[in-house]
Amino acid sequence: MRYVTFSDEPTITPDEFFMNEALKEAKLALEADEVPIGAVVVCRGKIIGRGHNLTERLNDVTAHAEMQAFTAAANFLGGKYLKDCTLYVSVEPCVMCAGASYWTQISRIVFGAYDPHRGFMRVNQRITHPKTEIVGGIKENECSMMVKEFFLRKRNKT
Amino acid sequence: MRYVTFSDEPTITPDEFFMNEALKEAKLALEADEVPIGAVVVCRGKIIGRGHNLTERLNDVTAHAEMQAFTAAANFLGGKYLKDCTLYVSVEPCVMCAGASYWTQISRIVFGAYDPHRGFMRVNQRITHPKTEIVGGIKENECSMMVKEFFLRKRNKT
Repeated sequence: MRYVTFSDEPTITPDEFFMNEALKEAKLALEADEVPIGAVVVCRGKIIGRGHNLTERLNDVTAHAEMQAFTAAANFLGGKYLKDCTLYVSVEPCVMCAGASYWTQISRIVFGAYDPHRGFMRVNQRITHPKTEIVGGIKENECSMMVKEFFLRKRNKT
Repeated sequence: MRYVTFSDEPTITPDEFFMNEALKEAKLALEADEVPIGAVVVCRGKIIGRGHNLTERLNDVTAHAEMQAFTAAANFLGGKYLKDCTLYVSVEPCVMCAGASYWTQISRIVFGAYDPHRGFMRVNQRITHPKTEIVGGIKENECSMMVKEFFLRKRNKT
């Protein structure tokens, strides 16, 4: 597979393109004073679900970006399973979200920043579906800086 | 601690009492033709959240009994955390629900039937919160039979 690019355009891969969309969602979370994490679910080149972290606003620790994107995508498809779909999320999913992805049987998970403390990869066993391909580190710096700056600003305020 | 009982009454522990309430929720799932799993969240002797599996009706793999009970309980308390609360659930929680319980920092999880295939205890590492006490096997037979009979009936129908 080759992507056609022009010399006066920056090269961007499809994964980077959709990670930018996840980052747009993260920015919505930031504007709502939430930990800035965003997600989109893509099915055959089309965004079919979006979500951003809303744990504070909804007073609900389960209101992670991924959970909302999964629910929105299943709603769009009219089926529970997200086969042939990719989750793009700006930060490595937590154990809850990885566990949710297992039930969706999603084909791919692409995340930006790694999260060594709370990310699902701290678990040595596979908790995602055996069919789910995992890609990490797409636009890692941008995704990571967004969360770091948020917590830095929070700390300086108090 | 001693529980006062009378000789003409069957002895029932508080854990069994609240597991019966989780089983009532499971029966509601059964009536809706859902995998019969139910949950309640209890805070200082009072049920503050209920839920039963609604994955089919809501077309949402994340609509597990526990997730709904967590959200309902947080809503009742007006705070995100479920400290001093106990989750009673008729079947061992899955990885997603155990991961959700981590974020709630719930004090106790009491479950009925073990689920060696999909239960969170198949993960060798602790994925629940370090402060969460786990109790399994309360009214195990009744909880287990409910799910087994459901799948047996499903299989005989097709």
